[in-house]
Amino acid sequence: MLEDLKQKVFEANKLLPKYGMVTFTWGNVSGVDREKKLIVIKPSGVDYETMTADDMVVVDFDGNVVEGKLRPSSDTPTHVILYNRFPNIGGVVHTHSSYATSWAQSGRSIPCYGTTHADYFYGEIPCVRTLTEQEIADDYELNTGVLIADEFEKNKVDYEAMPGVLCKNHGPFTWGKDPFEAVHNAVVLEEVAKMAYRAEVINKDINPAPQSLQDKHYFRKHGANAYYGQN
Amino acid sequence: MLEDLKQKVFEANKLLPKYGMVTFTWGNVSGVDREKKLIVIKPSGVDYETMTADDMVVVDFDGNVVEGKLRPSSDTPTHVILYNRFPNIGGVVHTHSSYATSWAQSGRSIPCYGTTHADYFYGEIPCVRTLTEQEIADDYELNTGVLIADEFEKNKVDYEAMPGVLCKNHGPFTWGKDPFEAVHNAVVLEEVAKMAYRAEVINKDINPAPQSLQDKHYFRKHGANAYYGQN
Amino acid sequence: MLEDLKQKVFEANKLLPKYGMVTFTWGNVSGVDREKKLIVIKPSGVDYETMTADDMVVVDFDGNVVEGKLRPSSDTPTHVILYNRFPNIGGVVHTHSSYATSWAQSGRSIPCYGTTHADYFYGEIPCVRTLTEQEIADDYELNTGVLIADEFEKNKVDYEAMPGVLCKNHGPFTWGKDPFEAVHNAVVLEEVAKMAYRAEVINKDINPAPQSLQDKHYFRKHGANAYYGQN
Amino acid sequence: MLEDLKQKVFEANKLLPKYGMVTFTWGNVSGVDREKKLIVIKPSGVDYETMTADDMVVVDFDGNVVEGKLRPSSDTPTHVILYNRFPNIGGVVHTHSSYATSWAQSGRSIPCYGTTHADYFYGEIPCVRTLTEQEIADDYELNTGVLIADEFEKNKVDYEAMPGVLCKNHGPFTWGKDPFEAVHNAVVLEEVAKMAYRAEVINKDINPAPQSLQDKHYFRKHGANAYYGQN
Repeated sequence: MLEDLKQKVFEANKLLPKYGMVTFTWGNVSGVDREKKLIVIKPSGVDYETMTADDMVVVDFDGNVVEGKLRPSSDTPTHVILYNRFPNIGGVVHTHSSYATSWAQSGRSIPCYGTTHADYFYGEIPCVRTLTEQEIADDYELNTGVLIADEFEKNKVDYEAMPGVLCKNHGPFTWGKDPFEAVHNAVVLEEVAKMAYRAEVINKDINPAPQSLQDKHYFRKHGANAYYGQN
Repeated sequence: MLEDLKQKVFEANKLLPKYGMVTFTWGNVSGVDREKKLIVIKPSGVDYETMTADDMVVVDFDGNVVEGKLRPSSDTPTHVILYNRFPNIGGVVHTHSSYATSWAQSGRSIPCYGTTHADYFYGEIPCVRTLTEQEIADDYELNTGVLIADEFEKNKVDYEAMPGVLCKNHGPFTWGKDPFEAVHNAVVLEEVAKMAYRAEVINKDINPAPQSLQDKHYFRKHGANAYYGQN
Repeated sequence: MLEDLKQKVFEANKLLPKYGMVTFTWGNVSGVDREKKLIVIKPSGVDYETMTADDMVVVDFDGNVVEGKLRPSSDTPTHVILYNRFPNIGGVVHTHSSYATSWAQSGRSIPCYGTTHADYFYGEIPCVRTLTEQEIADDYELNTGVLIADEFEKNKVDYEAMPGVLCKNHGPFTWGKDPFEAVHNAVVLEEVAKMAYRAEVINKDINPAPQSLQDKHYFRKHGANAYYGQN
Repeated sequence: MLEDLKQKVFEANKLLPKYGMVTFTWGNVSGVDREKKLIVIKPSGVDYETMTADDMVVVDFDGNVVEGKLRPSSDTPTHVILYNRFPNIGGVVHTHSSYATSWAQSGRSIPCYGTTHADYFYGEIPCVRTLTEQEIADDYELNTGVLIADEFEKNKVDYEAMPGVLCKNHGPFTWGKDPFEAVHNAVVLEEVAKMAYRAEVINKDINPAPQSLQDKHYFRKHGANAYYGQN
């Protein structure tokens, strides 16, 4: 079942250690088949070195396991909600990558200080609040996804132009049109988080990049008038 | 004698350079056989690259060498005390890993700023005081172990839920159910120390993660209701 | 056409990932043939791992593509202007290398704090302002080059003694007598940016190195009385 | 001539890139034959990857080249003075390693914040002043050595217990009983500089480690009562 997608999700998961995004098993990638309404995700707590494509777990849009001999990632309910609420995404990534997680721990959104950021994320990368005691007790992982989607909706943030978020005291989630783009955005987020950290140390009175520059860079890579790359 | 344990302790020691935990010979791992009341530990000042399983040294619960052609780690008395005072641990690690040691040098405990920390360490990771001149003169390495155990007892810190400590002006010790888990915790401590450092730079007014989130993450990985991983 | 230069530009581009200067495709190197008035540059958004010498694109001094099956780097107009305005340079590099980009994001020039800096860059490495909304709308990449050259001219900065610049909210450009020296200077700039960052953290009241020391180091490596190296 | 020493100095030089101590050609190691009063040192500006043992240059105690087809390191006069003034050293190293150089650029000595430092350097690692314009003009590299030796003498610092120094606005020199120990101390200095940097960020009110702890660690590794290691 879904052998192609399992292979892709497996390969995308293997990119996390390659790009230095994970320590031990602290991360997971999923992908979706929107026609069949099925999600493929990494199993929980399995070593990246010994993991095979066959270990990937298939769950439905309610988070029920449909196929797989292993338990899915404990973060599966968060992924499931994101696929339900963000209809155009094809892949989701969660990591504890070092700089992005430090921003999440600090509870701050990442301001857009330059073009590296603007090339991928349109505006500041939001940090959503910690869940309440009640939300944690009720269904922690599911409510994490609900909070992300609700906050994007409430603040009118376009999830396609802002393919990532920080969860306060926890860490980042990113997404994309497929699992590989979601991993790509996870790597960019970490790089952007690192540069923003250092830029603030260098200049305490730093300001975000002008909107005109942010627009220029975002739209030279995205949308009808994009001219970066070969397509 | 204890060939299996020697092999394990040897392999666990070799993980320290693999995970970037040591410069030169600055670190040591031990393991224990509680039935025979014997401890296996790395020899002192021996190069990780040329070291063999056969170089491991066996000492008893009073720290006396029982077998081994080399001198045991100079930190052996600290390990011995920890095995005596913490009856459920099976492995101990000491390193000078960079961020954890910087926190130790600064004399501060590491607050729990997020779930990476809470997944492994329940509460702030304590930094115990520098030994007095008298304690250093009497028996430095032994008194280091005594101080750690006494502080945990005095402050009612559960050593199984807090598998690590910082010694002021010195560096970290970690432990676990076996030598591999002790190394695992040493790597996590370093990662947590790094993120806490950066989170404080990003937000000077940072607060620890809410207790409800700390509880959630610790207990989704530990205890009767754990649901992380495959067991 | 220009097979030799294509090979050199290709090899110089491959040095960027080797020296840790780029994430993904975030960088580009060009070289020039001043007799033929032609520039060879990396194609836009192409992966460093699969790129071949044959993928390099040839453009003229007005930025028109003369040869090449791929689109040239979106930063090509900046390179073109630099070759037009700086008549003695033979190679140009643009990266988003981490520390240099953080300085650019902070909008600060890099003071000369020591001999590592003085060995290559004579004086503080300038950070030029963000382009205006009009300049961005008119011709972003071309105006980036114009601004750099204008600022050097206005402030009487010798581009041969100052082979690099930071563009505010964007990142660094460097140059040199050929593509390899331009890459060399990009690596030095990153190293210098890193050390300056840390030196300011260590000492808030830091001052630039005395002019006599800056002169000594710059001129022991450059000009008629140089005595560093073998030539 | 001195084939053995050339081989050792060559191998010690090759350790600098191995331990991440140098970018490009920014560093040099020398060794001495005290009976023959000859010094072997790296040639100036030669690539570490292509360098051979045969490229090493032999100079006498006045700094004159005695053998070698290449020009010696431009820092040779500094090394020569250190061998003249510090009669028990057998190897000298100069690098621009990142953290140590940042401390040198900041003009601050490195306080002893912990046992990693105390294990190798007895007391704070001194930062000597920038040379005067006159000293630079007269003989820059020679006067660098003179200043180091004079400052150690004036401040009664034992060069055997303090095998390294920072030169303000420049970078570190270290030494040891042979070229390998000098490289070892260069690596330790970089590690100590990194931890001290971070410890000060973590705790603005940090104090040096108590003298009793510094004594304990230094003397468990050095002198008649040492008990670290196997000798």
